[in-house]
Amino acid sequence: MKISDINLLDELEQAELSELRAVFNERRFAKDSVIYRPDEPENLVFIIAEGRVRVYLAYEDKEFTLAILSPGDLYATHAGCYIQAFDDTTLLVTEVQSVKRCMTEVPLFTRTMVRVLGHILENSFSIIGGLAFKDIYNRLMDYILAEARESGVPENGGLLLKLDLTTEQLAQVVGATRQTVSTLLNDMVRAGLMEKRGRGEYLIPDVDELARAAGA
Amino acid sequence: MKISDINLLDELEQAELSELRAVFNERRFAKDSVIYRPDEPENLVFIIAEGRVRVYLAYEDKEFTLAILSPGDLYATHAGCYIQAFDDTTLLVTEVQSVKRCMTEVPLFTRTMVRVLGHILENSFSIIGGLAFKDIYNRLMDYILAEARESGVPENGGLLLKLDLTTEQLAQVVGATRQTVSTLLNDMVRAGLMEKRGRGEYLIPDVDELARAAGA
Repeated sequence: MKISDINLLDELEQAELSELRAVFNERRFAKDSVIYRPDEPENLVFIIAEGRVRVYLAYEDKEFTLAILSPGDLYATHAGCYIQAFDDTTLLVTEVQSVKRCMTEVPLFTRTMVRVLGHILENSFSIIGGLAFKDIYNRLMDYILAEARESGVPENGGLLLKLDLTTEQLAQVVGATRQTVSTLLNDMVRAGLMEKRGRGEYLIPDVDELARAAGA
Repeated sequence: MKISDINLLDELEQAELSELRAVFNERRFAKDSVIYRPDEPENLVFIIAEGRVRVYLAYEDKEFTLAILSPGDLYATHAGCYIQAFDDTTLLVTEVQSVKRCMTEVPLFTRTMVRVLGHILENSFSIIGGLAFKDIYNRLMDYILAEARESGVPENGGLLLKLDLTTEQLAQVVGATRQTVSTLLNDMVRAGLMEKRGRGEYLIPDVDELARAAGA
């Protein structure tokens, strides 16, 4: 097994961590069930053992997905998100207090936490950009969608798009500053709508998904 | 000195960490200068040695402050925010690659990172709530502001407000679900506009600041 394959689950199997493993309780959740709501008083830490969970914010009828976490990922409910079982899921759950110590004893613990938080944070920034600049963001997505459909080259079920515009020119097209367009392009990449390939070159892995995002 | 007073700066002064300390370079920035922009190619990690820095998102003429970081705090530029010197500031700066190792060697490193990221994340959620539910949020802030001015009790330069409504009733007043009002009240607390004192009891430390937020 490669070092990079080691995750928290493997780490917890080690004999010297049996005491730590013992503070976690296994809990199972059926697909689609809501595991945690922000108004619950408990402050939990969990490791995903099986299945995936979705972390999201919800207000009225709007939901914002912040992350889909996989086995070996770690999450703390402290920040106040909803958590939902994305598959049939098994979690190793404990109270925050019980794991404060192992932050020192198991460096992989906090490193996993940093990775997960960083990922959620990037998605949050994309959501903020999208909400704050809905009009510009939609115009930008519309433009890219139209260009991709007109001149995109099929690749792996998606379309490879070469924009013949500088960011400055693209900014003029959608009526925004170069900096905002640059940030929103990064937001689209973070949101998984495009993958950057080179200067002005993007792969759109799922054109229908981009169309849905642009139409929202 | 108490354990809880130990921060990364103290930790780095320890003799056994002199090698780690050596990879950091000291850089000074004048108050208000922009230290980092999201489109810069460098991927830096820095520890705040003196002064404070502001982490924010900026699009066109809008800015969203995510955190004000203080000496001993740690930040990585990876997530793509603007960083500005809030005071005359001294930072200990290094490349991300140089500190990957010390994530294991210095547990306080990642623990500080988790704390800072968690703080920024909570502020991001408040911003998302505010943007997604601007109308409801404004009605809620207007209502609380009016109540505070009418019946709030002066305390420490602010006003102590006792709402004679359940969250359910407050939700009816502003035309939203109980859950959304509950989330937005938490957002106001996270944004520092109010401090929760008890059931339906809030201290508004700066009424003018709440008025500005409600009017925005």
